[in-house]
Amino acid sequence: MADETVMMSHGSGGTMMQRIIHEVFLESYGDDILAQGDDAASLSGFDSGRIALSTDTFVVTPRFFPGGDIGRLAICGTVNDVATSGAQVKYLSAGFVLEEGLPMDELRRICASMAATCAEAGVQIVTGDTKVVNRGHGDGIYINTTGVGLLPQGRDLSCRHIKPGDKVLLSGSLGDHGIAVISQREGLGFSTSIESDAAPLNHLIARVLEAAPHVRCFRDPTRGGLASTLNEFAQASGVAITVDEESVPVHEQVRGACEMLGYDIYQVANEGKMVCVVPPEEADAALAAMRGDTYGAEAALIGEVTEGEKVRVRNAFGATRIMDMLVGEQLPRIC
Amino acid sequence: MADETVMMSHGSGGTMMQRIIHEVFLESYGDDILAQGDDAASLSGFDSGRIALSTDTFVVTPRFFPGGDIGRLAICGTVNDVATSGAQVKYLSAGFVLEEGLPMDELRRICASMAATCAEAGVQIVTGDTKVVNRGHGDGIYINTTGVGLLPQGRDLSCRHIKPGDKVLLSGSLGDHGIAVISQREGLGFSTSIESDAAPLNHLIARVLEAAPHVRCFRDPTRGGLASTLNEFAQASGVAITVDEESVPVHEQVRGACEMLGYDIYQVANEGKMVCVVPPEEADAALAAMRGDTYGAEAALIGEVTEGEKVRVRNAFGATRIMDMLVGEQLPRIC
Repeated sequence: MADETVMMSHGSGGTMMQRIIHEVFLESYGDDILAQGDDAASLSGFDSGRIALSTDTFVVTPRFFPGGDIGRLAICGTVNDVATSGAQVKYLSAGFVLEEGLPMDELRRICASMAATCAEAGVQIVTGDTKVVNRGHGDGIYINTTGVGLLPQGRDLSCRHIKPGDKVLLSGSLGDHGIAVISQREGLGFSTSIESDAAPLNHLIARVLEAAPHVRCFRDPTRGGLASTLNEFAQASGVAITVDEESVPVHEQVRGACEMLGYDIYQVANEGKMVCVVPPEEADAALAAMRGDTYGAEAALIGEVTEGEKVRVRNAFGATRIMDMLVGEQLPRIC
Repeated sequence: MADETVMMSHGSGGTMMQRIIHEVFLESYGDDILAQGDDAASLSGFDSGRIALSTDTFVVTPRFFPGGDIGRLAICGTVNDVATSGAQVKYLSAGFVLEEGLPMDELRRICASMAATCAEAGVQIVTGDTKVVNRGHGDGIYINTTGVGLLPQGRDLSCRHIKPGDKVLLSGSLGDHGIAVISQREGLGFSTSIESDAAPLNHLIARVLEAAPHVRCFRDPTRGGLASTLNEFAQASGVAITVDEESVPVHEQVRGACEMLGYDIYQVANEGKMVCVVPPEEADAALAAMRGDTYGAEAALIGEVTEGEKVRVRNAFGATRIMDMLVGEQLPRIC
């Protein structure tokens, strides 16, 4: 492909668009369903009659950062959102908004990263769309992915099902993604040692559900961090949640970076972590299942649910404070 | 809602994002599934075990134009793409990229237009996502919609199934959308009399399938126009298609505008038209069904399929010329 950058004509609907579809997208994801060339993908195998659907658009800047890139993020984010429902994630759509002038090599690298992450997660991109906007109007590349999963009969995970007595598990350390991205963006010194945690967690969730079939719900603490996830849980189920500060895994460099930058670690975004609420009798089994997964080695039981409202953090001395949701903005363009 | 414009904090994952979700999005689309607050929507009723999936991102400029706006387009485009598979379109996701500073009133108008178009099409927005990018980086608003439909057992429409002898139907006049948008964008004089044709065509397709069950395929001739659609058909099925120029409905003002601007009417985008290829014995029934629909009053039989390759146009004197796909760009940012 001689074209070295994305041109307006790549979004025209004409021959140049056919070229970018064939030489970049099909080259990267090439599978039978995508290659059929119809406007909608026809998908079978939904024999339970139930599906889960989730969508996410990715606008992270910079597009490449330690531990990942916008392509890996675009797959992980949507795979994880669909998987939180307990569905088996199967198919993704991919919608691109490209800015005129984006280097074609960069687009290829992003597509290769998406393809590798799809392979890891065991999902397929089956339909897509490409728009090109004029130079200076877009922002390099935005990627929307929408995911569809098979939802087994009777499965009903929801943040509205949490009960007093339940335990809160976290699959690993907090803050790695947010700090990796902001370090890269601002050229901060610790950028080399902190990597984004971006990872597909559908296999981890499947393990946990196998071991602990009465899990109440899962959620990945992305934008807004653990604080948003737990506050949304407490509101949705009308309960209080208390987190034991000592038990929350945080890498030393990330903790140091948060102190230096004045960030609340509980509000920093993660892209490869899962929060799970589980009845007490299945907490040990769920935790063991998490730890058995590649992405759950540092999993921990971090808190418990009680009657009441709000989310609190209890420190090593037993004192508690409110864990607030982010007000205003902390780290924009993080995903 | 006191905020008059979109702010970076509306994309933070914190309390401001909760506000825009509740006060703008749920206010506009509010339905039970969307309001449940989980990351993935759980959807039942897919009893055939088969679904159709299609995605589209909308970047049209200007955002409001005669006959429509980016919101109506975002619903129609995806509804029509899913419907071309013969699926019953049921659910949509909506992913927004908002630019900091977008007037909140404009967002509300766009969401209201999306809601009205969903109601007309009989579809539901069941999951969504909102990102905010810094002022000067995005472009006001981009909207991705991804649609899911129920695909009946045994239905297999595809542009690879076209056979010599088949007839080509078009549901109405060409070029209205493209010319309406470009007129508005460039401030041309004929902007008042030409309106976009943006319309959901799922009901029209259902009528045609009822009347003509052996339809080969449908496609909406959007970017790239009729020329792209027919050339893609000819390539996919290894056939030739000849269009009878006299039979193609084109409004007088649109024809005049194309001549003035030097556009090929066959390459101009449409957003409320459907091309249908049907075996000859069902052509009359399919055409009558189209004409019976609100959006098909001007439907016409415009061409036929033969052995060979390429797409040709035959004029009133019987002379033919090749109908080429667009090379390069004609009307960027048209959808």
